[in-house]
Amino acid sequence: MKIIEKGSPTSPTGFSAAGIACGLKDSVALDLALLVSDRDCTASGVFTRNEIVAAPVVVDRETLAKNCERLRVMVANSGSANAVTGAQGLADARRMQALAAESIGCKPEQALVLSTGVIGVPLQMEKIASGIAAAVNARTSDGGLQAASAIMTTDSYAKHIAVSVALPQGEVIIGGMVKGSGMIHPNMATLLAVITTDAAVAPENLQKMLQSAAERSFNRISVDGDTSTNDTLLLLANGASGVDIDAASQLEFETALNYVSLELAKMVVWDAEGASKFVTIHIAGVASEADARAIGNTIATSPLVKTAFAGSDPNWGRILAAAGRAGVSFQPEKIGLWIATPDGNPLQLVSNGAPTDFAEADAAAIFARDEFNIQLDFGIGIAGTTMWTCDLTHEYITINADYRT
Amino acid sequence: MKIIEKGSPTSPTGFSAAGIACGLKDSVALDLALLVSDRDCTASGVFTRNEIVAAPVVVDRETLAKNCERLRVMVANSGSANAVTGAQGLADARRMQALAAESIGCKPEQALVLSTGVIGVPLQMEKIASGIAAAVNARTSDGGLQAASAIMTTDSYAKHIAVSVALPQGEVIIGGMVKGSGMIHPNMATLLAVITTDAAVAPENLQKMLQSAAERSFNRISVDGDTSTNDTLLLLANGASGVDIDAASQLEFETALNYVSLELAKMVVWDAEGASKFVTIHIAGVASEADARAIGNTIATSPLVKTAFAGSDPNWGRILAAAGRAGVSFQPEKIGLWIATPDGNPLQLVSNGAPTDFAEADAAAIFARDEFNIQLDFGIGIAGTTMWTCDLTHEYITINADYRT
Repeated sequence: MKIIEKGSPTSPTGFSAAGIACGLKDSVALDLALLVSDRDCTASGVFTRNEIVAAPVVVDRETLAKNCERLRVMVANSGSANAVTGAQGLADARRMQALAAESIGCKPEQALVLSTGVIGVPLQMEKIASGIAAAVNARTSDGGLQAASAIMTTDSYAKHIAVSVALPQGEVIIGGMVKGSGMIHPNMATLLAVITTDAAVAPENLQKMLQSAAERSFNRISVDGDTSTNDTLLLLANGASGVDIDAASQLEFETALNYVSLELAKMVVWDAEGASKFVTIHIAGVASEADARAIGNTIATSPLVKTAFAGSDPNWGRILAAAGRAGVSFQPEKIGLWIATPDGNPLQLVSNGAPTDFAEADAAAIFARDEFNIQLDFGIGIAGTTMWTCDLTHEYITINADYRT
Repeated sequence: MKIIEKGSPTSPTGFSAAGIACGLKDSVALDLALLVSDRDCTASGVFTRNEIVAAPVVVDRETLAKNCERLRVMVANSGSANAVTGAQGLADARRMQALAAESIGCKPEQALVLSTGVIGVPLQMEKIASGIAAAVNARTSDGGLQAASAIMTTDSYAKHIAVSVALPQGEVIIGGMVKGSGMIHPNMATLLAVITTDAAVAPENLQKMLQSAAERSFNRISVDGDTSTNDTLLLLANGASGVDIDAASQLEFETALNYVSLELAKMVVWDAEGASKFVTIHIAGVASEADARAIGNTIATSPLVKTAFAGSDPNWGRILAAAGRAGVSFQPEKIGLWIATPDGNPLQLVSNGAPTDFAEADAAAIFARDEFNIQLDFGIGIAGTTMWTCDLTHEYITINADYRT
């Protein structure tokens, strides 16, 4: 597997894209992305589990249920989430789908739609229509970079990646883009993500691989515990490389897909709203992965833990207190807690449930870094998990107290 | 029921208290509280459900299991939570209990101990010992006010109340104090609270009434979703009024107890770390109270909702998005959402799952107030609940990023 410089969803053969500004935002920022495959794609999607679901999610679920083998185009807008917009919102999402299909001469059920932005604000359909018309002409085979910019909301930079994988039967490329920096939490991370590949993959395999990849990446990150109405992760495989993913090459392809998914997910945490720290949480020694996730989630969403991160304060008591309210029963006297820099030796802060005689300055030096790891071992089982999160800062408050107005 | 001016846990007959400074904190602040009854009390307690439990909680649970009829004294310190302090911490808590008992000439099992402060820091037992000796001499029959000050950590003011209740058989008084402004969440609100009464109440009744009162008050407030290792709510009834709570007077007594509990709980929200808004959340029209609480909790702990409060931004989409991830299934097209000032007419923002044509300025005017209400009606059942919460502000970050250091 090799990382492709400036890789994006248009790195795989046969994809083109554009990101343009059609005036959906007050500024001149890019706000509409169009991604086109020059041939039919198999496709699969993973969507929000929120009870309140945006109109484009309704449309995409319907579309993929009817057709997961002949997808051609994806259109996405920022500026409005088209969620809680009633019957008009659903009609608008269908019209957006039809316009995207029409622009490249395919059927509506061959198009997918994504929206992100403020909830409850109707789409400005005239701008969307002229935007799609402009984007279809502007698209290029390296337009994935602009597309990644056009789906940004409070993101501070465009997030994209691509890798090439040399398989026995030939080379395939997997590319992807993601947006999201707030409302990020498992089930699933609140974001829009689109992954493309020029491998040929049967749709039932595609769905299995995408779900598995999401479990190991987008469902393991937490910025603020909030999940959105619009979360969508799409995977499009157009087969343009001429390489079929068979049983022999599936593992290597999946490893690359997992890598792309995880790198995109980590980018979201690195760019999390207001975040100044990237924290990896390892939970070990529990009875089940579900227990590990419950504990990891509780730590990753605890405001007291996250503000301690922000203050570079190795206030480990808050980490244990958060673990203790996760709804998982354990034996406090068996807990071990370590912290470490990504490259350094771990420093043990708690052993058998009691503080060690670590030097406060050593712990503070680790927490002062912009990236560090935490490991909790509960000593009662062999299951565990890893999650990624960030700190909670003044900047998060500033962004979210003032985002809409 | 009448509210007693400057009421406190020493308002009921037969209680005396002191709050003194014995040097547990760096400053000269009061840090040790002693509360004494001149006769035996029946007593009950409600404690944290955190898996990690502070030493004083272990001691008080043991003590009340052995003896809930002859309690005499309660000692509390701030500055250290005596949690995750291992075997030494447990020995210290027992010694603190013994010292309190000795100071008034009773047995250790007649004393209760409370600690609050940083986790993992051992108690300074010499200071505790000299503090108890000083407090037992300093105590007065209006010392409840100083005691309420001595249990404060990041609280910005002492929280106390008392009411008198005229029953057919005579007057009884219920007084209380509470500390807590961060790590506050149901099950139970993270805090120390002590309620006293000069009524005579059988211990089994006392426990039932206290649990019920906690459910309606301390378990319905959320500041930051974090629960602590030390949460303790105690109720001491010394019977000094000569009034027995019988079946005929139980309802009136319980109403007063619920009132005192709820007022203390609301004080915690008003004084929540960094908070600038007091928000009442009514959830209605769901299938069960458990569903209502799940939704209310999710809204009350959503950083995006709480920062919208802070920004006086009626960004109702975030409220619905939080409700949608509470794990309760509902029909979005039946949702109604209203906001209101405590004294004003409600303004409906969402009807049948779609935005109404309310004037943005009217909604903004309500959210600009320092106190307002939110009501969500899901239209699918007849159960509901009420919760109290606050906003998430820059000041919360400042307090918690810098608390320990």
